[in-house]
Amino acid sequence: MKIIDFRVRPPLKGILKTAMYANAPRRDRFTRQLGLKPAPSARKKSMPILLKEMKDAGVSRGVIMARISDMLGSISNKDVQDICKAYPKLFVGIAGVDPTSRRAALQQVDDAMKAGFRGITIEPGAYPTPLYADDRRLYPIYGHLEDRNIPVVIMNGGNAGPDLSYSSPIPLDRVAADFPTLKIVLSHGNWPWVHEILHVAFRRSNIYLSPDMYLYNMPGMDDYIKAANSWLSERFIYASAYPLTPLRDYAEWFVRLPLRPDVMEKCVYKNAAGLLRI
Amino acid sequence: MKIIDFRVRPPLKGILKTAMYANAPRRDRFTRQLGLKPAPSARKKSMPILLKEMKDAGVSRGVIMARISDMLGSISNKDVQDICKAYPKLFVGIAGVDPTSRRAALQQVDDAMKAGFRGITIEPGAYPTPLYADDRRLYPIYGHLEDRNIPVVIMNGGNAGPDLSYSSPIPLDRVAADFPTLKIVLSHGNWPWVHEILHVAFRRSNIYLSPDMYLYNMPGMDDYIKAANSWLSERFIYASAYPLTPLRDYAEWFVRLPLRPDVMEKCVYKNAAGLLRI
Amino acid sequence: MKIIDFRVRPPLKGILKTAMYANAPRRDRFTRQLGLKPAPSARKKSMPILLKEMKDAGVSRGVIMARISDMLGSISNKDVQDICKAYPKLFVGIAGVDPTSRRAALQQVDDAMKAGFRGITIEPGAYPTPLYADDRRLYPIYGHLEDRNIPVVIMNGGNAGPDLSYSSPIPLDRVAADFPTLKIVLSHGNWPWVHEILHVAFRRSNIYLSPDMYLYNMPGMDDYIKAANSWLSERFIYASAYPLTPLRDYAEWFVRLPLRPDVMEKCVYKNAAGLLRI
Repeated sequence: MKIIDFRVRPPLKGILKTAMYANAPRRDRFTRQLGLKPAPSARKKSMPILLKEMKDAGVSRGVIMARISDMLGSISNKDVQDICKAYPKLFVGIAGVDPTSRRAALQQVDDAMKAGFRGITIEPGAYPTPLYADDRRLYPIYGHLEDRNIPVVIMNGGNAGPDLSYSSPIPLDRVAADFPTLKIVLSHGNWPWVHEILHVAFRRSNIYLSPDMYLYNMPGMDDYIKAANSWLSERFIYASAYPLTPLRDYAEWFVRLPLRPDVMEKCVYKNAAGLLRI
Repeated sequence: MKIIDFRVRPPLKGILKTAMYANAPRRDRFTRQLGLKPAPSARKKSMPILLKEMKDAGVSRGVIMARISDMLGSISNKDVQDICKAYPKLFVGIAGVDPTSRRAALQQVDDAMKAGFRGITIEPGAYPTPLYADDRRLYPIYGHLEDRNIPVVIMNGGNAGPDLSYSSPIPLDRVAADFPTLKIVLSHGNWPWVHEILHVAFRRSNIYLSPDMYLYNMPGMDDYIKAANSWLSERFIYASAYPLTPLRDYAEWFVRLPLRPDVMEKCVYKNAAGLLRI
Repeated sequence: MKIIDFRVRPPLKGILKTAMYANAPRRDRFTRQLGLKPAPSARKKSMPILLKEMKDAGVSRGVIMARISDMLGSISNKDVQDICKAYPKLFVGIAGVDPTSRRAALQQVDDAMKAGFRGITIEPGAYPTPLYADDRRLYPIYGHLEDRNIPVVIMNGGNAGPDLSYSSPIPLDRVAADFPTLKIVLSHGNWPWVHEILHVAFRRSNIYLSPDMYLYNMPGMDDYIKAANSWLSERFIYASAYPLTPLRDYAEWFVRLPLRPDVMEKCVYKNAAGLLRI
């Protein structure tokens, strides 16, 4: 099966300076807490090993997201762009945007799209000054993206910010309603607010869910899968969140989930391919 | 089995002007998203067909609710009253109330009850000016209803208002506590806040749940049913929300749910009959 | 199997004046609503019967918590201390603290620990003036406890306060983050916010969950157990909340739950023993 992994962070350039690689014990503790074994490629920070793991897993494309965060460590658009250029068949990039200046932010979006990025990521609670997803300072950016048909990836689940309030699904519902044609992918699937975000996704057809590592035997897993097999089939997106999970083991687990064959294909490839224009 | 369907909207009078009939493609999209087929009676706006569907389903009574809403379309008390008069053995009515003027609202309640309505419905987030269920402007109405032993149907789940905050179960818990002898039926079962509203219903014995269409294979279904088979057995109420689901197919699905026989009978008939004094 | 029951209220001294014994019909209604039978010891307010029930259940220790509450009735530190002295091998005590005066509160903590209490309990929403768990007036107490390595038991689930907002897991997430080495046991397991508190416990390793009576066939039960069998195994704590459940029947039910044998032993004994220095 051909797979697009919607959230990978290969051991390259600035990514190596983030906690995911710079603080290996913390990362491995997280991986083990999920019940998984850290990937050899992650532990050795080895691209050759990762390339083999991706091949073994059937992952033909990985999506790399930039990041602007004190809490989690930043990954510059430039670094993501360089990595995608070095591996043009393997990686595609999603650019970050700094919301502190409205004009600069819109320019940053335009520059990124010209440079070949396939979308923009906003991580409201992880910004140096944490925001909620419906913060007024984000609205001009959402509008700019909607008008240009650029998908946005919002990280609003899991450790989305300083506390649980930053993953509340209420602000997301407002954003989805106020920008009804903006395609919004929710990294971490807005976990743990599973019932609530499934309602939001039922109501707003512009919401895509990608629960990634928080799908792995976590509370709500069955509800995500039930929805994916039904009305969410075109809007459920596979991701491993590598190196927080071992990319290959995660893929081997996922493809055995009780998803209908046609739905499985959509979840691991087609839905992402459509969004990213692959 | 004899069934009271606690939420039906037959294709008659002002109901035809609401989105449920005036925007058939939107309604049918909703029905299909649930995994159901639109009812022939709904598509043809045909009372004779609906009467046959009700008979086939074993539905001996339908409850029609008035509505005051820009978002969803209004249904006047007068229209509901006229329909109930035209089909006196088949339909009973629940009246709407406009909370913008306290005195007029209380008068509207008294007029409705004199006219034969069996209760009052309040849809806080759907009003032209959306309210939360514990808005101070609703409190005189709740008090008036409690003092007269008139049941209230609050629509505070699903698309209850402009955003997900309008279905929060927190305001409902306050209302149930502040008016402890007011019988409160929650249309849409306060979905998707399933765990939370089951706590509220466990704590407040004046809360009745009617998850209607949002029960249909949706997240939380098993928890609703588990509670109905146990401590919620006297306070779980059947409804199809026709025409959003096909009344007959929904009934055929519901009566096969794993509810104990005595509980099934309460859920589809007795609990509603007690509330409505049928 | 040897069991520590982390929440028991024997029929002794001031405990007899709280609603749990003074309002037996209310207590028994609660027990029956859960699907359980009231314990003979509770009905007869009999210590000899309770001692036998504890022995039959394998409960070698019970934890008694003081309480400062108008809503639920107060239990003084002095009374808890006297009971623990009268039954030194059977009961250990957790002291209450009155947050209305900062200096007096810290003194109260120090006095309690000198007197042999094993920890402090804070029930934010149950205080005569209800507080949220992250209220500024509680922060000096949390800091004092953290600095002295004293565990805190926060009651922030079930009927935690005047309404459902008092069991919100958001304030708890803040407290756990702001006092990262303070060991926090959540009595009632922060039910009904099951998905959300499991996220908080996944993220914050200083959170312990003790869902006690709200585990009993309630929504979310399977998720609690799944987590206990996995990453929460060292932080899940058994409790019956006697007399709200019959201590023996609850234990017999619990030990048959699908927990791995090593996990079961941790949940019913070792985790609590470590926290209480038994």
